[in-house]
Amino acid sequence: MEILNTGSELLDGRVVNTNGAWVAGRCSAHGLRVRRITVVGDELGEISSAIREILSRRPALLIITGGLGPTPDDMTAKAIAEALGKELKLDRDALAMLRRFYGQELTPAREKMAWLPEGARALENPVGAAPGMMVEHGGTKLIALPGVPAEMEAMFEAHVEPILAELAKGITRFEAHFLTFGVREADIADVLEDIAERAPEVYVKTHPKSEDGHYYLEIYVSIITNSAEEARRKMGSVIMTLSERITELGGSMKPYKPGPGDEAT
Amino acid sequence: MEILNTGSELLDGRVVNTNGAWVAGRCSAHGLRVRRITVVGDELGEISSAIREILSRRPALLIITGGLGPTPDDMTAKAIAEALGKELKLDRDALAMLRRFYGQELTPAREKMAWLPEGARALENPVGAAPGMMVEHGGTKLIALPGVPAEMEAMFEAHVEPILAELAKGITRFEAHFLTFGVREADIADVLEDIAERAPEVYVKTHPKSEDGHYYLEIYVSIITNSAEEARRKMGSVIMTLSERITELGGSMKPYKPGPGDEAT
Repeated sequence: MEILNTGSELLDGRVVNTNGAWVAGRCSAHGLRVRRITVVGDELGEISSAIREILSRRPALLIITGGLGPTPDDMTAKAIAEALGKELKLDRDALAMLRRFYGQELTPAREKMAWLPEGARALENPVGAAPGMMVEHGGTKLIALPGVPAEMEAMFEAHVEPILAELAKGITRFEAHFLTFGVREADIADVLEDIAERAPEVYVKTHPKSEDGHYYLEIYVSIITNSAEEARRKMGSVIMTLSERITELGGSMKPYKPGPGDEAT
Repeated sequence: MEILNTGSELLDGRVVNTNGAWVAGRCSAHGLRVRRITVVGDELGEISSAIREILSRRPALLIITGGLGPTPDDMTAKAIAEALGKELKLDRDALAMLRRFYGQELTPAREKMAWLPEGARALENPVGAAPGMMVEHGGTKLIALPGVPAEMEAMFEAHVEPILAELAKGITRFEAHFLTFGVREADIADVLEDIAERAPEVYVKTHPKSEDGHYYLEIYVSIITNSAEEARRKMGSVIMTLSERITELGGSMKPYKPGPGDEAT
C-alpha cells in the first residue's frame, strides 16, 4: 500500500508530516507494508500525476490526506477525478452530510465539498465538515481523508480500520527490540549480511545511538507472517546468531521496550 | 528541487520524517520551491527507481538522506550508481576520511562506506563516520547525506547551504501571517478564488483552528520573487482585498507571528 500526503505547508518546512507517520504506523500495526510515502503541494497537476504514478504500481490501498476543504487550494477531489479520467458530480450522500453539519449555513462555496469523482462513495466526517471519499480503480482502493489530524484520525478509525483488518486477515507482524553495548554497527555488518542472505524474511535494522558520550546500538528485529510458529522459529534463530556474535566480540545485548518518544533515523 | 528520504523506519510509523521537513524548511528559506518529498524503505530497487523517477522530472537539486552507513541495509550509494548506470568504485577521498575517523579500526565492513558511484565527490562528515556524496546528472545535482539528524544537519550546513545560496541568488520569499476571527474558511472561498486568478504568483493558504471552542482562521500569504518592490505591491493588494472582504462579513483580521511549535495540516 502507499500514502500520499498533500499540502504546500509540508513542502516548505512549516509542518512535519505527522499524518504520514500516523497512517503508516496504523497500517504497519496490521502487518501491512507501506511501500512509499509521497508528499506534493496544493497543485492540481502535481496531485493528479502523483496519483497516476502510484496507481501504476498497483497497490491494494492508497490513502490520501489533505485538500478536501472548501477553499480553492483544496483540490484533491478534482485531482482524483483527473487521475482516474472521471468527472466530478454532486454526490447526494456528501450533500446530506454537509447539510447536517452546516444547516442553514450551507453556502455554494461549501457545497463544493459534495462534488466527488463519479463512482466515489462519500465517507462521513464525525469531527469536521469535509466528507472523505473512497473509490476503486484497477484493484486499488483509493481513500481520501482531510488533512486536519483530528479529522483524519477519526475518519481513519471509522472507515479505514475495517478495510485494513480485512486486507490483513491472518497476517501479523512479530517484533523485538534490543540494546547492544560494546560493539559498533560496522562490527556486526558481516553477521547482518549473513542473516539477510539466510533469512531474508526477517527484517533487522540497527540504529547507532549515543548518550552522555556512551555509544550503544538499538537493534530492531521483525517478521511479517501468518504463522506465530514460523515467527518464533525464524526470529529466534536470528536473535541467537546476533547474540552469539556480539558476545564473541566482547559486547552485550539485552531486550528492551522502546517508549513512544523514541526516535531513530 | 526534490527530497528523497530513505529508511524502512519511516514507512512503518516508528519515525516521523523530521529530516524531510528540516531540509524542506532550509531550501524554502532560500526561496527555493520543493516540488515533492518521497520516502522509500531500505530496498535497492525501491531507492533506485525513486531516484530515476525524480531525475526524469529534472530538478536542479535532489537531496537524499539515509542509507550511507556500514550495514547491509545501507544501500544508497549502490542505488545511486544503479539509477545513473555507473559502477561503484573505491574513492580515495572518502577512504581518507574514514581513516581519519577510525584510525586502526578501519575494517573491510567499514571500508564499504568509501565505495561511491563513479564521478561522485565525497563530502566530509564533521560529526560521524559516513561520508556523504555529490554527483551531477543531466542538469541535476544529487547530494546524499546520512539519515542521523545531527550528521545530516551538520553536513547540510557545510556542503549544501553554499549550493542553495548559489541557486537562490536574488530570489527571496516574502511572507505574512494573519489571524482572522468571525468568518469561516468557506465564507472567503470566493475571494480566495478571485485572488488565485488575479495574482497567481501570490500564495495564500488558510488553516481553520479552534481553541476553547472558539473558531478562528490562520491565513498565510507569501510570494517568491527577486524584487522587494514587486513583493510589497502584490502582497499589499492581496492583503487589502482579504481584509476588506473579511470586514464586510463582520469579521476581523490581524497580523501575527507564528511560534516554532505552531502546526497546521
